[in-house]
Amino acid sequence: MSIVVVGSIAYDSLETPSGDAPDVLGGSAAYFSVAARFFGPVSVVAVVGTDFKPEARQLLADRGIDLRGLEQRPGKTFRWHGRYHEDMNRRDTLSLALGVFENFSPTLLPDQRRCDYLFLGNIAPELQERVLAQVQNPKLVAGDTMDHWIANAGDDLKRLLPRLDIITLNDDEARMLSGEHNLVKAGRGILRMGPKTVLIKRGEYGVLQFSRDAMFAVPAYPLEEVVDPTGAGDTFAGAFMGYLARNGRMNESALRTAVVYGSVLASFVVEKFSLERLLALTWEEIDNRYRAFIELTDSHHSRWT
Amino acid sequence: MSIVVVGSIAYDSLETPSGDAPDVLGGSAAYFSVAARFFGPVSVVAVVGTDFKPEARQLLADRGIDLRGLEQRPGKTFRWHGRYHEDMNRRDTLSLALGVFENFSPTLLPDQRRCDYLFLGNIAPELQERVLAQVQNPKLVAGDTMDHWIANAGDDLKRLLPRLDIITLNDDEARMLSGEHNLVKAGRGILRMGPKTVLIKRGEYGVLQFSRDAMFAVPAYPLEEVVDPTGAGDTFAGAFMGYLARNGRMNESALRTAVVYGSVLASFVVEKFSLERLLALTWEEIDNRYRAFIELTDSHHSRWT
Repeated sequence: MSIVVVGSIAYDSLETPSGDAPDVLGGSAAYFSVAARFFGPVSVVAVVGTDFKPEARQLLADRGIDLRGLEQRPGKTFRWHGRYHEDMNRRDTLSLALGVFENFSPTLLPDQRRCDYLFLGNIAPELQERVLAQVQNPKLVAGDTMDHWIANAGDDLKRLLPRLDIITLNDDEARMLSGEHNLVKAGRGILRMGPKTVLIKRGEYGVLQFSRDAMFAVPAYPLEEVVDPTGAGDTFAGAFMGYLARNGRMNESALRTAVVYGSVLASFVVEKFSLERLLALTWEEIDNRYRAFIELTDSHHSRWT
Repeated sequence: MSIVVVGSIAYDSLETPSGDAPDVLGGSAAYFSVAARFFGPVSVVAVVGTDFKPEARQLLADRGIDLRGLEQRPGKTFRWHGRYHEDMNRRDTLSLALGVFENFSPTLLPDQRRCDYLFLGNIAPELQERVLAQVQNPKLVAGDTMDHWIANAGDDLKRLLPRLDIITLNDDEARMLSGEHNLVKAGRGILRMGPKTVLIKRGEYGVLQFSRDAMFAVPAYPLEEVVDPTGAGDTFAGAFMGYLARNGRMNESALRTAVVYGSVLASFVVEKFSLERLLALTWEEIDNRYRAFIELTDSHHSRWT
């Protein structure tokens, strides 16, 4: 049932309307694995530099995240410096240094090649394909992507798409990939490119999920304060995959519950900088917000009649 | 159980990415009354000029909308000329001529003064207050407003708010009125100003409803094509009030069902220009989309297990 995640581990420097957080732990594989770990085992494939602090590794190891695939190489860890606008759906990249991530060529360990659940974080589609080729017989493969790859490696991405069960992207990326401004057309257009399920992440506006014969829409959990939106999408994906792996089935019902768990964990991670909130999170808090989320979106008025 | 709506009847000239529609019937009271009429009786209080065409009046009368309160006065009917961006949440007003609406001083007929349900469309808060003063013992009063009144008649509006059961406004207006950027803080802040329920309309992102002890969020029904967003908010309000008036109760369950009906009717009106889609709409279509909407938002997976 183990999940393997391939992605980045990074040091982020964050500026948001709530304050600054210099040199904090980040990267898609960090957020993903911490979120997925609430649901079951997760194994990381990533690379860091010699500047990566033992405390950071320890922090992830202490959560029971399998780090045998976290390679340390001569050079610098991936660094991103970003600044969010008052409208936190918008952000500027102030600097970005790929470091050792530039020559990342993920090689899976023998037991990782036998994983059931594989998440291809936001790396070059060609690398995603190379990872996928190493996995023998996965039950479920999901992948994330971004505008950069759609623009510069579109053919690679389109070759990968039919091999994905699930693709996750944000609304602008969905528009870009499909060439459709309308999100319903975009979602359905991407479905026709091959994946069984398309998950469009809309930040504070929630998630739209398209599959062959169903469409599912949820709002984001409304929060009084968002401190740092970094990693919300990867946290969503981690909890989403974590739930699916624990549940073992992948029907529409399971996908919908997974979207709700993804939304719940994402609503926590943004309450503090970096991984801080996730690291302090308890299952009791998750359960309570899960129930609050169901109540928030419940037009059946099961509780209200 | 009759609803009285006070608002504008207008001629709109619309430019959207889908095309142009010059001099078409519009105005808050037009959209509201046509939508509300699907659920029960509705009575209009509005003013038009001598240029108002008998066919337009006939069209509304043929739907069984009570037009005894639609005054015709010397002068021009309210005209609005607007252009929508590719992102149809954004629009520019190219011209606006209030005409006879400038000196609109609504006077209710004796039977209108005994109405149970009152909707105060988007007019000056001082006029809304004057209308409210004429109604004897309403069961439910809802009101709409806009940025112009928040900026220029804020004190009048704040005096009115404690007398409203429901206030409807869009997200920018909610931020402006509350002085809070965050929508949860904004919604709760406006609740503290007096109304029992705050409905924040977010266009293609759906609706957030705040009441004393509950929060309800629904996405908008995702459409493959939006032709003309004009009147979506007033159509929402018409169906929302129509359902509440027909249902007779105003508990959380009824409010939530009303929000869904509002969202359903709003999803139809934007499919064509002006009132065209609403005028061709059948109850079978409403029922089908209501079910589709429930399925779209159903994280209980009642159908999916």
